[in-house]
Amino acid sequence: MATYINPLIVQRADPYIYKHTDGYYYFTASVPAYDRIEIRRAHTLAGLAHAAPRTIWHKHQTGAMSQLIWAPEIHYLAGKWYIYFAAAATTAFDTNGMFQHRMFCLECSGDSMQEADWQERGQIKTPLDTFALDATCFEHAGELYYVWAQKDPQIKGNSNLYIAQMSNPWTLKTKPVMLSKPELSWETRIFWVNEGPAVIHHGDKFFLTYSASATDENYCMGMLQISDQANLLDANQWQKGQQPVFQSDLAHQQYGPGHNSFTVAEDDQTDILVYHCRDYTDIQGDPLYDPNRHTKVQPFTWDATGQPDFGKPVPYNYQ
Amino acid sequence: MATYINPLIVQRADPYIYKHTDGYYYFTASVPAYDRIEIRRAHTLAGLAHAAPRTIWHKHQTGAMSQLIWAPEIHYLAGKWYIYFAAAATTAFDTNGMFQHRMFCLECSGDSMQEADWQERGQIKTPLDTFALDATCFEHAGELYYVWAQKDPQIKGNSNLYIAQMSNPWTLKTKPVMLSKPELSWETRIFWVNEGPAVIHHGDKFFLTYSASATDENYCMGMLQISDQANLLDANQWQKGQQPVFQSDLAHQQYGPGHNSFTVAEDDQTDILVYHCRDYTDIQGDPLYDPNRHTKVQPFTWDATGQPDFGKPVPYNYQ
Repeated sequence: MATYINPLIVQRADPYIYKHTDGYYYFTASVPAYDRIEIRRAHTLAGLAHAAPRTIWHKHQTGAMSQLIWAPEIHYLAGKWYIYFAAAATTAFDTNGMFQHRMFCLECSGDSMQEADWQERGQIKTPLDTFALDATCFEHAGELYYVWAQKDPQIKGNSNLYIAQMSNPWTLKTKPVMLSKPELSWETRIFWVNEGPAVIHHGDKFFLTYSASATDENYCMGMLQISDQANLLDANQWQKGQQPVFQSDLAHQQYGPGHNSFTVAEDDQTDILVYHCRDYTDIQGDPLYDPNRHTKVQPFTWDATGQPDFGKPVPYNYQ
Repeated sequence: MATYINPLIVQRADPYIYKHTDGYYYFTASVPAYDRIEIRRAHTLAGLAHAAPRTIWHKHQTGAMSQLIWAPEIHYLAGKWYIYFAAAATTAFDTNGMFQHRMFCLECSGDSMQEADWQERGQIKTPLDTFALDATCFEHAGELYYVWAQKDPQIKGNSNLYIAQMSNPWTLKTKPVMLSKPELSWETRIFWVNEGPAVIHHGDKFFLTYSASATDENYCMGMLQISDQANLLDANQWQKGQQPVFQSDLAHQQYGPGHNSFTVAEDDQTDILVYHCRDYTDIQGDPLYDPNRHTKVQPFTWDATGQPDFGKPVPYNYQ
């Protein structure tokens, strides 16, 4: 099985890697200054550590997209590139005590590495006008599905997970359906959080991983799953795992692994878990501005019953 | 000869690499936010691309060390660690139309990777109270020499190069002697600049490289040299090369190579040139806040007359 040097990319949190039909791996993630969206690409995962980034979008001076640019993802849908990202108008909290992010969409029908080729498609509006972040999407049976995290003032905690179908990459077609809320012990450590959803299809199922609890050593990954023959908008059809599927390994100083995405190895067969974690917990000052959440990648396998085995966060192995 | 994947480290300008007796390469450089000093270390140069950084000093909220933290260098002198860095009280220009940096020193007699083990030794004062930056140091014949760039209001341009002896790592013992000022065509493109000095000893000579002109594709490296038997404080003993020794390679999109340092390969014999450059010139907004000056490393050789041959900036070679 392929091995990689970890951490793969230092100081990039909320990592997202997509292997495109042009043979490139495209990488984007939160930039520590939270002031822009950048893309890098390489023909190998290892190459992403050295690939020269391009900034393809800068935050606005004022307004809804002017602060705390978080967790971009890049998708290729029906021949065009799209980026989903969270942005806020202010770093202040709202009346719910939450950051004030909403989700936004960029579109590119030209060269995805050129800022001039990207245009804004605006906010992705949901019925609730609350803190929203970490959107992802996937296609199934001719429909585009949008999955994201959002605050409901009626539910304790920072955010829950929702799904809806889309009529185009920046417009919902159906009502949001809540798939999970923070409720289990490992989802409610310090903060009650469900966020960072990522979807992978294997066998005859969809698996939806997500991140839970505070973003320190308590941060960990949970998982939902559903038959691909089921109605994906029926929350009752999704099964929620009662235990985390990936968590800190204190013995190897791997703290708070999460906010994952999925990609595939150079062999186009081996599944790869992409995530960030820290290698220390004694943070000086505001953890939000401590840049040392590093991107890691590691292969994972599926057991005889068709369930993923993510193992533990691998130790650092650079020389 | 060793080859390395380039760029070695993305988004780190003004790179400095020191191979210590503990077998580690220590790396520090300007952080794009200019708000801190960080160190990473690894047993190989390639490992530095993946090495987890530690922030060992944060800028102050106000005062002389509160803005634009630039170009740190880490040195090991008489059993203690030292970092030289430039900092300013403001991002505004002074009456000379220059940034307002001065040079400062940190000292560590404990664990160099731990912020708590570093203490401030204050400003390195020079007779001229003007824009100063990019200091380095070296030891020779029982003396510690300090070499830096500084503005003289009587001389056209941003900064000249100076040398002095030190009584301790943060105090000058002798008067500054000017070794070079921007005067040649390739030192005066857009801006008149001599900065970023780096010193290497080879054969019976010291070689002092530096960077010249504006920090775009015009940025390039010049070189001075002197016999190690000469009085290093005698400016007339230094010979200034009339041509740049390293410059942009437009054919390979390697723009503005410079602000170099020197280290040695894993074989402890091959000399390595460490520098930054960009791979594009069409910068959006203020170049100071465009983070894509990347750290590169490449071996270099010495010719039969004892002169270095730095070649050209190698093309990027990541896959």
